[in-house]
Amino acid sequence: MKTALEGNLIFMVIEYLGILSCGLSGGLAAVRKGYDIIAILLVSWISALGGGVVRDVLLGQVPPSGITDKGSVIVTLASGLVVAVAHPEISRMTWSMLVTDAMALGSFAVNGTAKALMCGTGGMTAIFMGMATALVGGLLRDILLNQVPAVIQDQHWYALPSLIGCLLTLASTRAQQHGLYPVRVDMILDLAIVALVVVLRIISVKFDILVPGAVDRHSARLP
Amino acid sequence: MKTALEGNLIFMVIEYLGILSCGLSGGLAAVRKGYDIIAILLVSWISALGGGVVRDVLLGQVPPSGITDKGSVIVTLASGLVVAVAHPEISRMTWSMLVTDAMALGSFAVNGTAKALMCGTGGMTAIFMGMATALVGGLLRDILLNQVPAVIQDQHWYALPSLIGCLLTLASTRAQQHGLYPVRVDMILDLAIVALVVVLRIISVKFDILVPGAVDRHSARLP
Amino acid sequence: MKTALEGNLIFMVIEYLGILSCGLSGGLAAVRKGYDIIAILLVSWISALGGGVVRDVLLGQVPPSGITDKGSVIVTLASGLVVAVAHPEISRMTWSMLVTDAMALGSFAVNGTAKALMCGTGGMTAIFMGMATALVGGLLRDILLNQVPAVIQDQHWYALPSLIGCLLTLASTRAQQHGLYPVRVDMILDLAIVALVVVLRIISVKFDILVPGAVDRHSARLP
Repeated sequence: MKTALEGNLIFMVIEYLGILSCGLSGGLAAVRKGYDIIAILLVSWISALGGGVVRDVLLGQVPPSGITDKGSVIVTLASGLVVAVAHPEISRMTWSMLVTDAMALGSFAVNGTAKALMCGTGGMTAIFMGMATALVGGLLRDILLNQVPAVIQDQHWYALPSLIGCLLTLASTRAQQHGLYPVRVDMILDLAIVALVVVLRIISVKFDILVPGAVDRHSARLP
Repeated sequence: MKTALEGNLIFMVIEYLGILSCGLSGGLAAVRKGYDIIAILLVSWISALGGGVVRDVLLGQVPPSGITDKGSVIVTLASGLVVAVAHPEISRMTWSMLVTDAMALGSFAVNGTAKALMCGTGGMTAIFMGMATALVGGLLRDILLNQVPAVIQDQHWYALPSLIGCLLTLASTRAQQHGLYPVRVDMILDLAIVALVVVLRIISVKFDILVPGAVDRHSARLP
Repeated sequence: MKTALEGNLIFMVIEYLGILSCGLSGGLAAVRKGYDIIAILLVSWISALGGGVVRDVLLGQVPPSGITDKGSVIVTLASGLVVAVAHPEISRMTWSMLVTDAMALGSFAVNGTAKALMCGTGGMTAIFMGMATALVGGLLRDILLNQVPAVIQDQHWYALPSLIGCLLTLASTRAQQHGLYPVRVDMILDLAIVALVVVLRIISVKFDILVPGAVDRHSARLP
C-alpha cells in the first residue's frame, strides 16, 4: 500500500536523506563506543528503519518494509559503511546532521501518519503510528547501546515537533479526503509540515528551548 | 473481540483503576529522574498499556487496543499529567499505590488470559499472554529508564501471583466452557482471582517474603 | 508450516541441543547476577526462544511458536531449573557450552532463513529472518539484564558466521527449488552449513580473531 506521498519525488528525496541521516548518526554512536563493523551496520539499520518496522508490525503490514524494501536497506547499510570510514568528518558536521535528522523526524512522522490512515485506522491510532515511525528508531538505537533513550532524556523539542507534524498530517489528510482540496495540494502541505518540524527542532536546539518537566515542588528527585 | 469480563462493571472499574495506577507509578518513575513532560507521558502510557500492546501483537489483534482504545489512552495520559503536578502526594501514597498496582497485576493477568482463550489459543499460550499483559508494561518502563526490570530484580512475589492468576483463570474458563457453571459465576470467580493476586502480592511485600533464587552452592555470583 | 528440515531427526536433535544450550547460558547469566528463580526461567526462555518469537511476529505467523510449541517451552523451562541447581558445574563447561551455543547459532540461522522462504518472502527478507532468529534471543537476554548486547559488544565472530549460514541456506534452498538436487541433498547441505557456522565461531574464539571496527583515524572514540 502506497501513500500519496510516495509518488512525490521531493518527498522521496527528503525521506531518503532522512534515512541516510539516521543511519549515519546511529552508526556514529556505535563507532564512538568502539564497536565492530557488524554492530555499526546493525545500529545504523535499526536507527533508520526500526521505527517503520515497529509501525508495520503494529499495523499488521508484515513483513515490514524495513526488511523488505531493498532501497532503504541498502541506504542504511551504505550509511554504516560510510560512517565507519568517514566518522571524523561526519562528527564535525554537527549542524548538517541536525538538519537532516530533523528532516527524518518530519518525513517519518508525516509518512507514518499517512500510511496508517491509508490502512484505515482512526485518527488517534494514526498519530501513534506517526510518532512510532519518527521516534522508535532512535529509541531502539539507545536501547541497543544501553543508554537512556534521547527521547526520554533530551529536553529539547524532539517528540513535540513530531507530534505537531502528525496532528497536522491528520488534519490535512482529513481535509483532502473531504474534498477541500486536491491530492496535489495535500502533497505541498505535507512538504510544508516537514519544513515546520525541521524549523521547530532547529529553533529548539539553537536557542536551547526545553520542554518543561514536572511541576517543581521541591521533592521531584527524592526517592 | 470482547471477553465476558468486559461486560462486567466491577471488573471494568478494577481494570481502569489498574491502568490509572500503572500510569501514575510509571509517570512517577520518570518524574523522579527529572525527565520532561513528554517523557513522563510516554512512560505512563507504556507502563499501563505496553503489556496489552505486546499481547495483541503476539495474538495478531492489530492495531493493538493500547493505541486504538480512546478510554485507556486518555486515562494513561491523564495519569501522566496528574503525576507531573501531584508527584509529592503520590510519592507518599505508598500503600494505596501498592494495592492499585496489585489490582492492575491481577486484572491484566485475568483479562489477558481470557482474551487469548477467546482468540482460540491453547492453554499454555493463554497463560503466556496473561503473563505478558501483566508484566511487560513494567518491563518496558524499566527498559526505557535503562534500569534492570523490576520483574527480574525484585525478589518479592510479583510474577508469581500473576502466574497463579493466569492458571486459575484458565481453569475457571475451561470449567465454564464445559458447562460446569454459567458465565455469571465465571465473572465472580474472576473477581475472586484478582482479589487473590492482590492479597498474595501485598502479603509478600508486607511480610517481606521472597521468591528463592538459585540453589546456593558457594559459586553463584562468581564469574 | 514446516520446513523440510523439521522432518530431519539429526537437525531436530541439533536444534533442541541449541535451545537447551541457549536456555542454560541465559539462565546462568541470571544466576550470576543473583536473581530469583522466576527471573532465571524468564531469561532462559527469552534467550532460547525470543529470536523465534520476533521472527514469527515479523512474518505474521502468530501466535509465535516460542509460546505455542510445548516441546521448546518445556526444554527452556527445564534448562532454567537445571541451571538453578547445577550452575557451578555448567559454569565450568565453558567449551561444551561454546560448541552447543554455536550449534544454536547455526541451526537457528538455517531454520529461520528456511522458514521465511517457506512463507514466501524474498531472499533479503529471509536473511533478515535467519539473523533475527539467531541473534535476537541473546540480544533480548542482555536488554533484560541491562547490559550492552553481546552481539554489539563482543568483537568475536558471532553475527558474521550466522550471516554466512543464512546466505548459504538461501543459496542451497534456491538451488533445490530450481531442481538442482533433491530435498534429501538439501538436508545434508543444511547440516553442513550448521557445522560450518560452529567451526567458524569456535575458530574465532579459540584463536581470538576479531571483526574489525571502524577505520582508526585517531578520533574514533572522542565525543
